[in-house]
Amino acid sequence: VDVLTVVGVGLIGASAALAARAQGVARRIVGVDRSVGVLERAVRLGVIDEATGDLPAGVANAGLVLFCSPVDRIAEQVVTAAALCHPGTLLTDVGSTKAAIVRAVRGRLPDHLAFVPGHPLAGSEKNGPDFATAELFCNRLVVLTPDGQTADPAVDQIELFWQTLGARVCRMDAAEHDQALALTSHLPHLLASALAGILPPELASLTATGFRDTTRLAGGLPRLWQAILLDNREAILAAVEKLQRQIERYRQALDTADTDVLEALLTEAKKIRDRL
Amino acid sequence: VDVLTVVGVGLIGASAALAARAQGVARRIVGVDRSVGVLERAVRLGVIDEATGDLPAGVANAGLVLFCSPVDRIAEQVVTAAALCHPGTLLTDVGSTKAAIVRAVRGRLPDHLAFVPGHPLAGSEKNGPDFATAELFCNRLVVLTPDGQTADPAVDQIELFWQTLGARVCRMDAAEHDQALALTSHLPHLLASALAGILPPELASLTATGFRDTTRLAGGLPRLWQAILLDNREAILAAVEKLQRQIERYRQALDTADTDVLEALLTEAKKIRDRL
Repeated sequence: VDVLTVVGVGLIGASAALAARAQGVARRIVGVDRSVGVLERAVRLGVIDEATGDLPAGVANAGLVLFCSPVDRIAEQVVTAAALCHPGTLLTDVGSTKAAIVRAVRGRLPDHLAFVPGHPLAGSEKNGPDFATAELFCNRLVVLTPDGQTADPAVDQIELFWQTLGARVCRMDAAEHDQALALTSHLPHLLASALAGILPPELASLTATGFRDTTRLAGGLPRLWQAILLDNREAILAAVEKLQRQIERYRQALDTADTDVLEALLTEAKKIRDRL
Repeated sequence: VDVLTVVGVGLIGASAALAARAQGVARRIVGVDRSVGVLERAVRLGVIDEATGDLPAGVANAGLVLFCSPVDRIAEQVVTAAALCHPGTLLTDVGSTKAAIVRAVRGRLPDHLAFVPGHPLAGSEKNGPDFATAELFCNRLVVLTPDGQTADPAVDQIELFWQTLGARVCRMDAAEHDQALALTSHLPHLLASALAGILPPELASLTATGFRDTTRLAGGLPRLWQAILLDNREAILAAVEKLQRQIERYRQALDTADTDVLEALLTEAKKIRDRL
């Protein structure tokens, strides 16, 4: 495309910009963000060519707009941007939850525009454009969740966009995506935060790589994750309850000093983990 | 020392052997293990010079014996070995739990021998001598838990041994160690296993680095971890219950869609995690 506009120049948005530039996907990259500091930093790092805090101005000449904002803001931004885009502009996003966004956008776009909902399964506990890298999406999976109303050519183009950035792409239903990610991504985040949250400060020096890896996700931005957890709360509640039952199995095995049950639980878990 | 004997040539034992050799700590390294396969592999990899399945034969000429077996086997091996060692031989271990081992050994050693209980906070989800590395202990913390009956010069020598292998060393009470590690190491392991255990096979392709890091510890050997969890079960039960209460806080915040509580929990967790 001629102009790629990235809305939300955090770790994901800035990494997509760097990757798009490295692959020659866009002649010019525009960054839109609420934070002047983030925009200045992104320009200085060469992540974006042009910066603005004004969404309408930022999308006016875009051929492709990539929404990388918190999930509770994406739908409104898509609708706002759509009113100002050229016919044929492609709109897509990277939100970690999909069904609510798809629902909120449905029926509110002009006929000449397509929004392709997407979610790259990539990230970091580090935040902001300083930690962005063009390799963030290499060999990672991007899930696209078009519905019956999404134009096929638009989906194909967004698929090609992510493949050009090094990612693998699959398509699935938005609700099915949210159900799956509740367990594979949102629950691990909640768990990492719960574990980090109960560490008394005086024990910090007695943590090693095990504690650090298990709690790595807790370094994510609370503002982003609060929105993700609430957006997908029903599926996450079900996943939390499933985990609570599993932890209770371990607790009971410990309580009754049941070696066999404990070893069976650990063995089953290792089998599943070793396959990943 | 002239001869270092490593009892249990798994990841930790083999890594200690490699590090000791790299630092010129011992002229000759003897490996003792129940598994002939492990011993053959360790000899072929140059981890040990001599291999035996017979503990008494393995320790007969040792100046230093390092016990790296499962925690439920260490105390008996220490007592057995002690009956056959030269006067002045140093005995130490790497068990992840300390109080039960200290208790089981107490009063059962000849006067001319000292056992210095230890625990290097280092490891990997990979197992066996093939994954051993001389750098495993670099900048890691080793906790020694001598009691009033442990001879000071022996403790100093074991401290120097680990420092020579690149580690930092601290000393603390065995019960205090077990209490702390229940939360910083044993609970994360249980949690990683609980989370891995509830992943349906069809969702494996939708996991990313977040799920993988959070469950990394679940790759540990069930035989080793079952013994650790049972050995320290009272402290771990208390830690599990603390975590259950914390997860319940998240569940309730989700259930009532309480944005403020959720963001406060995530913010507090991030603050603690970022400090590590």
